[in-house]
Amino acid sequence: MKLSELGEDAVVSRLTRSLRLDGRVVVRPGDDCAVVETAGSLQLLKTDCIIEGIHFLSDANPRLIGWKAMCRPISDVAAMGGTPRDALVTLAVRPDVEFAWLKRVYSGLEAAARVYGVNLVGGETAKSPGPLFISVALTGSIAGGKYVGRSGGQKGDWLYVTGKLGGSINGRHLRFRPRLAEALWLVAQFPIHAMMDLSDGLASDLPRLAAASKLGFEVDSSSLPLHHGVSIGNGLRDGEDYELLFAVPSSVKTRLEAEWRAKFPKLRLTAIGRLVEKGRTQFTEKGYDHFGR
Amino acid sequence: MKLSELGEDAVVSRLTRSLRLDGRVVVRPGDDCAVVETAGSLQLLKTDCIIEGIHFLSDANPRLIGWKAMCRPISDVAAMGGTPRDALVTLAVRPDVEFAWLKRVYSGLEAAARVYGVNLVGGETAKSPGPLFISVALTGSIAGGKYVGRSGGQKGDWLYVTGKLGGSINGRHLRFRPRLAEALWLVAQFPIHAMMDLSDGLASDLPRLAAASKLGFEVDSSSLPLHHGVSIGNGLRDGEDYELLFAVPSSVKTRLEAEWRAKFPKLRLTAIGRLVEKGRTQFTEKGYDHFGR
Repeated sequence: MKLSELGEDAVVSRLTRSLRLDGRVVVRPGDDCAVVETAGSLQLLKTDCIIEGIHFLSDANPRLIGWKAMCRPISDVAAMGGTPRDALVTLAVRPDVEFAWLKRVYSGLEAAARVYGVNLVGGETAKSPGPLFISVALTGSIAGGKYVGRSGGQKGDWLYVTGKLGGSINGRHLRFRPRLAEALWLVAQFPIHAMMDLSDGLASDLPRLAAASKLGFEVDSSSLPLHHGVSIGNGLRDGEDYELLFAVPSSVKTRLEAEWRAKFPKLRLTAIGRLVEKGRTQFTEKGYDHFGR
Repeated sequence: MKLSELGEDAVVSRLTRSLRLDGRVVVRPGDDCAVVETAGSLQLLKTDCIIEGIHFLSDANPRLIGWKAMCRPISDVAAMGGTPRDALVTLAVRPDVEFAWLKRVYSGLEAAARVYGVNLVGGETAKSPGPLFISVALTGSIAGGKYVGRSGGQKGDWLYVTGKLGGSINGRHLRFRPRLAEALWLVAQFPIHAMMDLSDGLASDLPRLAAASKLGFEVDSSSLPLHHGVSIGNGLRDGEDYELLFAVPSSVKTRLEAEWRAKFPKLRLTAIGRLVEKGRTQFTEKGYDHFGR
């Protein structure tokens, strides 16, 4: 069977389900990051890649290509409640590329590393026979062992998203800001049961969080926070929002909303629905799947 | 200027020399691995990638493609005197690839992980518009803070290589065994001043070790341990040997050679020459450069 027939989630799940891991591995493949015990502390590990023609076009601003490559794994570390630490970059690039262009890509990587306190400690450069390929590996630390995965959601939890959804293809997908400060604050202040970043669109990502928590969900589509001019369908499916999706017990709803407004007055926080018993799901639309049509 | 005119070393050096790193970074970009202080211990970080059409051909045994992708960074961690710990894999692959074929690639990754005690903790799968691309990010630990870089070589040190050189293109480049046990034993038993793995060929790699140590070298080319049927030129230039190159003080030469023979009777260890004052170099042949011709 071809990968495109299976779909990305099934491919990853089938590739990784038989892995033998030792007792240091706390969170197995399938969450935003792996969680591993290292030297007595929990460490987050994440890799991500962006590829010319898939995640950016050849004529994109090279600085923004670098920015995006670094910010994607930072967003994943943030979504686990972690602090990003050290990054390694692997570049595969055609030999006829101008050094000055590649230097601008690197300056975008460096800019994002600086803004989010990441050490860019090295990496590899290899010859690509075709498209530019940038892979970033990132480590993260966890304060007090309090990481947040996708699987801790409980029935009745409220579901929230930060910011607005949809339309990122018009440029936002290259310029987004990982919600690092917001995630760290949430995890420090509230009992966040489950959290992830929205990379493939709410219609794909929310079912993943619900499935990991062995629950269903009910979302009022008309309540979704949408960017200007974006339809509900696009808000659900476009992907590359890089906003936070999280679940909290209903007991903290009032305090969360009040304290959020005081702490992050410029960034919207929207209650979009709740986690419910397994089997019930609100969405019928299907989000973007890397291997689907 | 195009990357092919600059050459790989210059590209990497120019990209990384301005990086701002915090005090946790012990070894900066340019060595086999980065060394970072994490939770009070030293941690090795490495990424590497292999690409269809560059590092393997489309009709290569998929299991060996996976084996090679995992073993390359293991070889780098070994060459720093480290123990490999946790790996993340990023696969970019065409959607029309058969799942069964990709599963065989993964089984090669898993086999290498198992043999060398690595946890394969996760990774990403993305759509490639063309060639298969496999990037592996690997962490490593260091016993007692004793890592070995390239820069510690001293004038008069003897230079050794393990195994034999040359001709890896005939299949060995897909099946090689990282010298992990050998490297750990060397670092535990002897004052290894500098070490690296031979990935681009002795003619490219030895000048890097010597330059990092601010020294020159003298090598008797006729003493090089060569695979059957390999010329001296090919032994110097072919690359992908993944053998260890290291420098030790002459005071331990006799003991090293005797104890090596007892410990690793099946693997050759050859004194190929010495580190000397800066400026003197034996080689005139130029090794493989990823961006050169």
